[in-house]
Amino acid sequence: MQEWKDYQAANKDRFLNELLELLRIPSVSARSEHKDDMLRCAEAVKKSLLNAGADKAEIYATNGHPVVYAEKFIDASKPTVLVYGHYDVQPAEPLELWHSGPFEPTIKDGKIFARGACDDKGQFYMHVKALETLVQTNSLPVNIKFIIEGEEEIGSSHLADFVKQNKALLKADVILISDTAMISIDTPSIDVGVRGLTYVEIEVTGPNRDLHSGVYGGAVANPITILAKMIASLHDGDNHITIPGFYDDVVESSAAERAELAKAPFDEEEYKKDLEVNALWGEKGYTANERTGIRPTLEINGIWGGYIGEGSKTVLPSKAYAKISCRLVPNQKSAPMEKLLIDHLYKIAPPYVQVKVTPHHGGDPYMTPVDSIEYKAASKAIEATFGKPPIPVRGGGSIPITALFESELGCKVVFLGFGLDSDNLHSPNEKYDIVNFYKGIETIPYFHKFYAEMKLS
Amino acid sequence: MQEWKDYQAANKDRFLNELLELLRIPSVSARSEHKDDMLRCAEAVKKSLLNAGADKAEIYATNGHPVVYAEKFIDASKPTVLVYGHYDVQPAEPLELWHSGPFEPTIKDGKIFARGACDDKGQFYMHVKALETLVQTNSLPVNIKFIIEGEEEIGSSHLADFVKQNKALLKADVILISDTAMISIDTPSIDVGVRGLTYVEIEVTGPNRDLHSGVYGGAVANPITILAKMIASLHDGDNHITIPGFYDDVVESSAAERAELAKAPFDEEEYKKDLEVNALWGEKGYTANERTGIRPTLEINGIWGGYIGEGSKTVLPSKAYAKISCRLVPNQKSAPMEKLLIDHLYKIAPPYVQVKVTPHHGGDPYMTPVDSIEYKAASKAIEATFGKPPIPVRGGGSIPITALFESELGCKVVFLGFGLDSDNLHSPNEKYDIVNFYKGIETIPYFHKFYAEMKLS
Repeated sequence: MQEWKDYQAANKDRFLNELLELLRIPSVSARSEHKDDMLRCAEAVKKSLLNAGADKAEIYATNGHPVVYAEKFIDASKPTVLVYGHYDVQPAEPLELWHSGPFEPTIKDGKIFARGACDDKGQFYMHVKALETLVQTNSLPVNIKFIIEGEEEIGSSHLADFVKQNKALLKADVILISDTAMISIDTPSIDVGVRGLTYVEIEVTGPNRDLHSGVYGGAVANPITILAKMIASLHDGDNHITIPGFYDDVVESSAAERAELAKAPFDEEEYKKDLEVNALWGEKGYTANERTGIRPTLEINGIWGGYIGEGSKTVLPSKAYAKISCRLVPNQKSAPMEKLLIDHLYKIAPPYVQVKVTPHHGGDPYMTPVDSIEYKAASKAIEATFGKPPIPVRGGGSIPITALFESELGCKVVFLGFGLDSDNLHSPNEKYDIVNFYKGIETIPYFHKFYAEMKLS
Repeated sequence: MQEWKDYQAANKDRFLNELLELLRIPSVSARSEHKDDMLRCAEAVKKSLLNAGADKAEIYATNGHPVVYAEKFIDASKPTVLVYGHYDVQPAEPLELWHSGPFEPTIKDGKIFARGACDDKGQFYMHVKALETLVQTNSLPVNIKFIIEGEEEIGSSHLADFVKQNKALLKADVILISDTAMISIDTPSIDVGVRGLTYVEIEVTGPNRDLHSGVYGGAVANPITILAKMIASLHDGDNHITIPGFYDDVVESSAAERAELAKAPFDEEEYKKDLEVNALWGEKGYTANERTGIRPTLEINGIWGGYIGEGSKTVLPSKAYAKISCRLVPNQKSAPMEKLLIDHLYKIAPPYVQVKVTPHHGGDPYMTPVDSIEYKAASKAIEATFGKPPIPVRGGGSIPITALFESELGCKVVFLGFGLDSDNLHSPNEKYDIVNFYKGIETIPYFHKFYAEMKLS
């Protein structure tokens, strides 16, 4: 489609500059002090969709951060693609490890460095610019709807209600999401699955106040020691998770499926070198790709307690805390797994301490069937622009809302992600390669074209 | 000594107000931002000693915070008492748990609430006012020297050099320290031992950057999980410390000694109620008092890693940290125990992570013989003002410099402490009962009197 290429080539610098503007807004959903930034970002997204040619774009208030909805209708006989993305970003801390300001996007070596560059502003914005391309070249082959939310990084807690209450508005034939990664620009891949998530916070209280570790140490349980023992007990010597029933609902992958997954290129030495670790870690009996793809995991995302300042303080603290999350795989469900985790933490708490566990958020795992036209259209689009078909892989991350989309809206979700695992998502120096950004804008129109053709044939 | 009583009664309000002024200075030695406050506090201490009647008072610079030295000489034929104390205080955090500002001393229910109220400003200041009493009533029975340092809470790291370089200046017959507690105002006691200390900080590094816990979780060791496993392994199921050789130098207390210690009143139900814990914790085979008195311990004083802010962040962190300290008993020595601890931490670190252990500070344990005239003079002084002899107990805390005092200055140390275990040392809402403050000022002159009599007889 030479027309698309010409239009995009003529406007590419503007596309990039518009993205940089969006990246300047610190839309950190987890932090209440960014409430106004969230609103400002929603406004900017709405405006960008109208500028791209949407018939209408609206900001819908929720009990949390607002949702941006937009649509471009062409013809009731055409299928409808619902594009989902999120304008919120992870907290930028630890700030001291960033080489440039997280909200001062910086271009270096062909990469955009900024919080949200890849996750997900850079990726959903490709869809905005793909829409613009199709509208401006009068070649839009489908009806398009956008739902860009502001709470993905905190579990999409209010999006579920919004989806349930707006089924007619959101009615579509397929949901298209760019919020995942591919193996590399030379080895394109499509995530056919995302893991589910359950996330809790534990507070362990020992004595009712911080104590002098000399006067009381040895006679009163230290909540840090107890918490460490509780955490240590969650994995056995083979790094299996010890919570009774944890693996009950896991669909074990067949030997054939594991052989298929093993075809994805993986260089363990390169992987270790990139992370600067001497040895990999994980569940016995599985490869690194399987550990992040087809197996559930339990990670400690944060821990704190006692004196954490400069120097020393001889304190036996009153409290210790940890943030604990599990990634889930088919057919584990978030709600019962959250209950299993919480019940287990209460059960293993010794009598010396009080334990309180608070759930944060969760989401079910999701898989796209590789024999569906949704997957096939995505695969064919990748092939059209990359010159080779994508490898289907199982992604390790989670997009909490996907399972709910399918159950509420009755259509499949397909992941068309252009990020890389090395993009430092959720880490300092998050980046997105400019070439990937453009490649996405180039590929998305093909998805719409092929999907319309397959759906109508 | 009616004369002392009359003088003290006439000046008691002023004594208290002067202490409150001293408590307003935030002399937190651990924090570099309080460097100027430390100097200001040293100046205030110097001035108070001159006002009390010292012949001279000087501030000696060290490579850390300065030392205040003062003396009142009466007669070369009289024995010399060296009073040791410290004007530095522990950090006040967590600030939100204080009912009034830590450096805005507040009197409530007969107690002074402030950081340092008991540890140790309130206690060393009793000696300043005891000196004033003796000078003003022309009844000083001994030569007195003061050494009030500014680094006790961070391990007295520069005081050792100062003592070694100023042996002539500090020459004394006995060292008197008020930096410990008694059982209660109705059950006076004297600490005949303080535990030693070794304090280290551990940094565990997994991957070289914070990672997305979905993309990498399960395949890369999480440093928090590893640190938790390392910490958990330091105590076995009986809460014995598992470090090989840890107990080798411990002098086991005899059955007779344990029977003597068991005479100190201890109400387990009251203790649990005060701390609001359902069960006590500790090394199997020992009572609570033994666990804090005659047994060495290992405590985690702080832990941190990953995301510790509001809400959730799905991160697999690069680093996790902990502050770990051991209390030591005779004949454990701080330096070899520190090496034992550090070597052990390196040894148990798995290959998935890099570990770095940094020593903070330490000190050897110390014991005062109960048959010494130093102890007897203190015991008789307590009896003179409390109406009953004190119970000798083993204290759980540490005063790192005491063992060095004896070895360098060749004289015994005696602890004449008027605090209470419930004074919230190192905790929010530190307090000192006004009655204890006055009782100390009343008792100290008797120590000088009885010590001079016993020494010269």
